[in-house]
Amino acid sequence: MTEQEIRTALAQAVDDVREKNPLAPSITNTVTQDFVANAQLAVGGSAAMLYLPDECEAMAKVAPAFYINMGTTMPFYAETLPHAARALCDNRTPWVLDPVGIGMSELRTKILSQFKDFKPTIIRGNASEIIALAKLWQLVGDNYGGQVRGVDSTEKVSSAKSAAIALAKFTGGAVAVSGEEDLVTDGTKTISCAGGSILFTKITGSGCALGGVMAIYAAVATPFIAALAATTVFNVAGTTAAEAQVPASFKVKFLDTLYTLTGAEVAQNFRVVGTIDSMLTYNFGMELNS
Amino acid sequence: MTEQEIRTALAQAVDDVREKNPLAPSITNTVTQDFVANAQLAVGGSAAMLYLPDECEAMAKVAPAFYINMGTTMPFYAETLPHAARALCDNRTPWVLDPVGIGMSELRTKILSQFKDFKPTIIRGNASEIIALAKLWQLVGDNYGGQVRGVDSTEKVSSAKSAAIALAKFTGGAVAVSGEEDLVTDGTKTISCAGGSILFTKITGSGCALGGVMAIYAAVATPFIAALAATTVFNVAGTTAAEAQVPASFKVKFLDTLYTLTGAEVAQNFRVVGTIDSMLTYNFGMELNS
Amino acid sequence: MTEQEIRTALAQAVDDVREKNPLAPSITNTVTQDFVANAQLAVGGSAAMLYLPDECEAMAKVAPAFYINMGTTMPFYAETLPHAARALCDNRTPWVLDPVGIGMSELRTKILSQFKDFKPTIIRGNASEIIALAKLWQLVGDNYGGQVRGVDSTEKVSSAKSAAIALAKFTGGAVAVSGEEDLVTDGTKTISCAGGSILFTKITGSGCALGGVMAIYAAVATPFIAALAATTVFNVAGTTAAEAQVPASFKVKFLDTLYTLTGAEVAQNFRVVGTIDSMLTYNFGMELNS
Repeated sequence: MTEQEIRTALAQAVDDVREKNPLAPSITNTVTQDFVANAQLAVGGSAAMLYLPDECEAMAKVAPAFYINMGTTMPFYAETLPHAARALCDNRTPWVLDPVGIGMSELRTKILSQFKDFKPTIIRGNASEIIALAKLWQLVGDNYGGQVRGVDSTEKVSSAKSAAIALAKFTGGAVAVSGEEDLVTDGTKTISCAGGSILFTKITGSGCALGGVMAIYAAVATPFIAALAATTVFNVAGTTAAEAQVPASFKVKFLDTLYTLTGAEVAQNFRVVGTIDSMLTYNFGMELNS
Repeated sequence: MTEQEIRTALAQAVDDVREKNPLAPSITNTVTQDFVANAQLAVGGSAAMLYLPDECEAMAKVAPAFYINMGTTMPFYAETLPHAARALCDNRTPWVLDPVGIGMSELRTKILSQFKDFKPTIIRGNASEIIALAKLWQLVGDNYGGQVRGVDSTEKVSSAKSAAIALAKFTGGAVAVSGEEDLVTDGTKTISCAGGSILFTKITGSGCALGGVMAIYAAVATPFIAALAATTVFNVAGTTAAEAQVPASFKVKFLDTLYTLTGAEVAQNFRVVGTIDSMLTYNFGMELNS
Repeated sequence: MTEQEIRTALAQAVDDVREKNPLAPSITNTVTQDFVANAQLAVGGSAAMLYLPDECEAMAKVAPAFYINMGTTMPFYAETLPHAARALCDNRTPWVLDPVGIGMSELRTKILSQFKDFKPTIIRGNASEIIALAKLWQLVGDNYGGQVRGVDSTEKVSSAKSAAIALAKFTGGAVAVSGEEDLVTDGTKTISCAGGSILFTKITGSGCALGGVMAIYAAVATPFIAALAATTVFNVAGTTAAEAQVPASFKVKFLDTLYTLTGAEVAQNFRVVGTIDSMLTYNFGMELNS
């Protein structure tokens, strides 16, 4: 896939969502649901947040895509999340996993361990979270670096490259690592891209909203293109919104810009950092040099 | 009731709320609580969101009005919602029901079936939801049209007219159907009114906020006037806010405008579509031609 | 502590938070989590909201400060809150308690009674809530005034002065009473300060956000200075934001201003009402003249 082919596919994904208005239901944290839903609507999708096991299972069967974000896990998630993930897997519904707060409790660890069997289509997280998930699933060695502080990353995106590739190889989908630069990989192609704004870290829920928007694009595109489209849309709109210079105005301008972006604008402003890696060899279960 | 009398009553409701600052506690979805509460405050009311069965029951007894929105139902709602609704009914506290997500799970269906006994004062929903509720309560035939996709309507407001009238006849209160045009009925008078903006569908929680504001007006006005006042206030403020053209700025301007609207402005900008229907005959339990 | 020393300490707290980016995890109500988190980020802190007993306990042990807000109590809080508070107490982690909704249910009363043993570092509430908590803990007589309506206060700040002092004496920390004027006390020093805007009462979550920001400052300052720093920061930014004149724009401008305030600006705009009281005598368990 050449860079030009990628640009064309990104434009297509952005425009397809505007035309088809796909629904991506979410099980997501209570802090940022408003932002997630408004971002999903702004790019042209439709949103619905759920908690009950049976309705998550029912929606997992009929929705064109789904989003699971582990933030603010509640006790009844012990039943809801595995039910939903199993239904998503069985029905081959594309879904995005955001493993926020990995390692904070036994319940999260248990649920995230179970998710290994259900292979999320896209995994999105910061560097620390991606590394922690690859470790939990034993796809990289225990001595691989990276720690989580609350919901923030303590690692650079580049340090999670091998972990991201290992996860993508394992799931057969895509992995996106968010940070100052963003990395998106499907296990063979790996892209670092740039844009956005430091102000994303000064408002709550940027990462959650990004995951929710990935699920919207996953309804119309391959996992790799969906992950890259959402990442690029956020980078482009974030760069524009950064003119605001202060966080609450930034958030308003960011959502406003999301609403107006066209496929052509996104394709044109997609910024690759360095070159696109195409890895030809990969040894499963072994830690790679990143 | 002439159109002029209606205008006068609308102005009165808007001004009374500013003067009396009534509290309408809510059991409502976690996605849009912030928007619901801010809309309630902006029109001059007071807000409180609750989950526990005993405190919902206690507030249902003392509050001048109450709001129940079925979005993001959680497992413990099985106890909370029937407790609250029974207390509201027993104490004749006016309450607004928004049957979001009707049909998505056994628990929702069970709770909404129970609500038939507790007769909500105002029912607000999109066309699909109103039709589904009238079917669930067996007030219209099973072959009446209408389906729900997630939280969005697949039906036009006009197609829910008979269902809305049947529900209002049954409860003795009012029903509001929201959409491009809005329909408000008390079972005998039916009004279609216009205004607002397509941008209401590009932000999350417009319908929820509308229901919450109806509960505020229900503390000072009849069900019909309360439903119509909230609908009109949203239409007028939505029309003004539509100048923003983009969704996040629209939401800010909408809330700002809600805060400044006077009763006189609302009465003046109330826009009836066609004429006000006064239905003289109605056969309970039979499907009407809409 | 002279007024000049207080100004210096306020400036220090504001600047230290910007430099150290402390994390204050929260167990807080679902309505205003977005506002709380964004306010915490805007002043330079870091946010994480939690529900599960074991992860609240784990974070209570490692975080530099913590925030517990009783709004929208859910059934599983019966386990979560006492676990968290015990861990906070055992580990001497500074924590802020906002007793929203005190008296609304048996569960809230039971949990708030248990908190007496765990001595919150800072207690923040409106006048009615502070009085109710002092009564519940039997630190003032039952005939002391004050009632709660939903989440709003029915009392003036000044009427809660003795209750606030009694609570601060008992915990050895600080108490902040929010209202038109704000009162902050550590049981010996009592300050009334001014600023802010009536628009704080027209948006939801001002009090919650204030409590969350107090927890951020409690990570770097004494309880008294932390409570006063957050109060002053809100007063200064609220005064600036009041130019907006309407509530949603006010909230955006308020968060934007929080993000830009420096320690020097906060110190310079700190407004004491009257003089700083230093009470020399205090009889535990007796009602004081305020």
